[in-house]
Amino acid sequence: MTTLKNCRPMGGPATDLHIAGGRFAAEAAEGGEVIDCGGRILIPGLVEAHTHLDKSLLGMAWYRNEVGPRLIDKITNEREVKVSLGLDPQVQSERQAILSVSKGTTQIRSHVDVDTHHGLAGVEGVMATREKLSGLVDIEIVAFPQSSMMPRPGTVEMMDEALSLGADLVGGIDPCGIERDPKGHLDAVFALAEKHGKPIDIHLHEQDALGGFSMEEIIARTLAHGMQGKVTISHAFCLGMTNRAYAAELHARLAEAGIHIITTAPSAVPVPAVKELKAAGILTGSGSDGIRDTWGPFGNTDMLERAMFISQRNNLRRDDEVEMALDICTYGGAAIMETQGYGLNVGDRADCVLVEGEALAEAVAMRAPRKLVLKGGAVVARDGICVREAP
Amino acid sequence: MTTLKNCRPMGGPATDLHIAGGRFAAEAAEGGEVIDCGGRILIPGLVEAHTHLDKSLLGMAWYRNEVGPRLIDKITNEREVKVSLGLDPQVQSERQAILSVSKGTTQIRSHVDVDTHHGLAGVEGVMATREKLSGLVDIEIVAFPQSSMMPRPGTVEMMDEALSLGADLVGGIDPCGIERDPKGHLDAVFALAEKHGKPIDIHLHEQDALGGFSMEEIIARTLAHGMQGKVTISHAFCLGMTNRAYAAELHARLAEAGIHIITTAPSAVPVPAVKELKAAGILTGSGSDGIRDTWGPFGNTDMLERAMFISQRNNLRRDDEVEMALDICTYGGAAIMETQGYGLNVGDRADCVLVEGEALAEAVAMRAPRKLVLKGGAVVARDGICVREAP
Ligand SMILES: [Zn+2]
Ligand SMILES: [Zn+2]
Repeated sequence: MTTLKNCRPMGGPATDLHIAGGRFAAEAAEGGEVIDCGGRILIPGLVEAHTHLDKSLLGMAWYRNEVGPRLIDKITNEREVKVSLGLDPQVQSERQAILSVSKGTTQIRSHVDVDTHHGLAGVEGVMATREKLSGLVDIEIVAFPQSSMMPRPGTVEMMDEALSLGADLVGGIDPCGIERDPKGHLDAVFALAEKHGKPIDIHLHEQDALGGFSMEEIIARTLAHGMQGKVTISHAFCLGMTNRAYAAELHARLAEAGIHIITTAPSAVPVPAVKELKAAGILTGSGSDGIRDTWGPFGNTDMLERAMFISQRNNLRRDDEVEMALDICTYGGAAIMETQGYGLNVGDRADCVLVEGEALAEAVAMRAPRKLVLKGGAVVARDGICVREAP
Repeated sequence: MTTLKNCRPMGGPATDLHIAGGRFAAEAAEGGEVIDCGGRILIPGLVEAHTHLDKSLLGMAWYRNEVGPRLIDKITNEREVKVSLGLDPQVQSERQAILSVSKGTTQIRSHVDVDTHHGLAGVEGVMATREKLSGLVDIEIVAFPQSSMMPRPGTVEMMDEALSLGADLVGGIDPCGIERDPKGHLDAVFALAEKHGKPIDIHLHEQDALGGFSMEEIIARTLAHGMQGKVTISHAFCLGMTNRAYAAELHARLAEAGIHIITTAPSAVPVPAVKELKAAGILTGSGSDGIRDTWGPFGNTDMLERAMFISQRNNLRRDDEVEMALDICTYGGAAIMETQGYGLNVGDRADCVLVEGEALAEAVAMRAPRKLVLKGGAVVARDGICVREAP
């Protein structure tokens, strides 16, 4: 029973929006609270569609990074120092999720490590945080075989357990580059998905023709298992290949298989071209990936900043282009997560953010502290600070 | 006569630093002010070595960008809308420079448009700001033929006037891509430099072999004119070419000619590899380039953020690597600008910034509001706010 007075949905004309029962409503309820939005822009809650809640070092002593340059160096180092640093997945995921809420994120898809070294500690920790922060932010968990699955016996069984325990999606990782067994890995991933009736989100860092090969194998299995609309490929660096004719062919086949792409738009590697994905009809979302972890010091969970990164990486400068980048960080991610009632229309869940700026592109460029964040109609952050204190 | 008590120079052990006569001194003067730094890290003033003070739209109504995709679209659009928007180079440069100071920048190299449409209005405006902000920030002016020089008769004469008036460096722009006359353009640029006894800073966006060709021509003239150490190439996208053997050859020849490189580390185009520049012995600086102008909505003058962009673009994750990116945004730029007495040693000018974080890499990753900024020993910003209010 709240009225958001004088807000500008998506940067349009000022209006009053009413909320009842946690959803946008056509009319004001009597005696409800009125919040003066001061003519600020209202957008639906930001969507963090790819992160790693279990491994952030937020709130811990500074970790001096001296890790080697290869992907495998980072994976091995992390698996080991998690123990020496005494990293607690519950505490760390709570810290990161609360920071996310303060930046206007209302839903998160988090990959969570599952390996034979740490077992299900990560999944259990993030599940506990999900419970603890219920009502503040929705958290979706991907059981993620970060340390590889096929080369490490016992991991498939651990993944199976994680999915029984409450993980929402089956994760996967470079079928060739890390797994060295694309057939074995992808067969196992799709078998787990079929057994548990759960969707898939695979990390694919492989570049060029190698990534294209793995992608073709993912497409083939998606069609064979009738999983159209249920499979996401995260990163998909291969789509940034220089062979644009092959990339276009992959775009068409991904669209046909209803496979979604999540890009974090990193600047040091090839990335999918978001305009081309959109033109091909591929749902695209985005995420922060790791936040201040043993992989690197950067990241702050701000999905408006991510929209800026997407814009810069894809050379989006016009207002309509920057709006497209913001759409990826809102509607795109929500569509991939199949969020029901996402948006600012009557009947939609009142998950929304008041942002500063005259226009949507200015909100992305400025990234000022979020004036107000609502989750299901309740205030969860004000002036950049979450109502819940981090542990 | 100030003592910076309990500060950590470059993230090292806590100490007290003394300032007398605007410079770091060996001993405390009697009766001086003591500033408690609370154990924060002290770094020398950030160096904005490439920006465009005359064309920012900071503080003006939001400019809805609907500009075409080519470089020439942006140049033509800008030359025209400057008039319709009523952009005042003095006011705009003051706004941007004050924002820079608030972020810890103590010296700026700004390219300033010189063309037959606007004449010397830009240079005069930025010179007025330089005067007005004397003591807060040092501003170096590059006379910049943004709209091209050779194809627009009268521009060379205008450049000559700008240099007589008080511009500090001769600018240039894509000798092939924009000028369509590399010999004519570069001969004119070097002739102006020789006539006025001033250094050169050329914008070079040309990629691959084309940029390599122009670079070879710049190298040849630098040697022929005995201008080693006096020539900078900004952007130098061609050094990000895929032909790494040719890039390495160019690195060696640039080093031999004492030519400096300034990179803004954009993410959508090839960029020089900063580690390779360093290994080749090439001085490297950085800058924000355009800040919220008709070219694009992004930019906030924060050179700690720029160090993050350099890190991300060059895949620098280790602490020592991120420190290298910060070095580019401090010592690198200062060396290129031939700043005398830059640093934190006794006798150096007390231009410095207190930043938040346990380690230098954390300061870059967090980019918290700057606790304190000193220019020549005087406080010019506190808690992210400049002591001078923007117009
Ligand atoms: Zn990831
Ligand atoms: Zn520039």
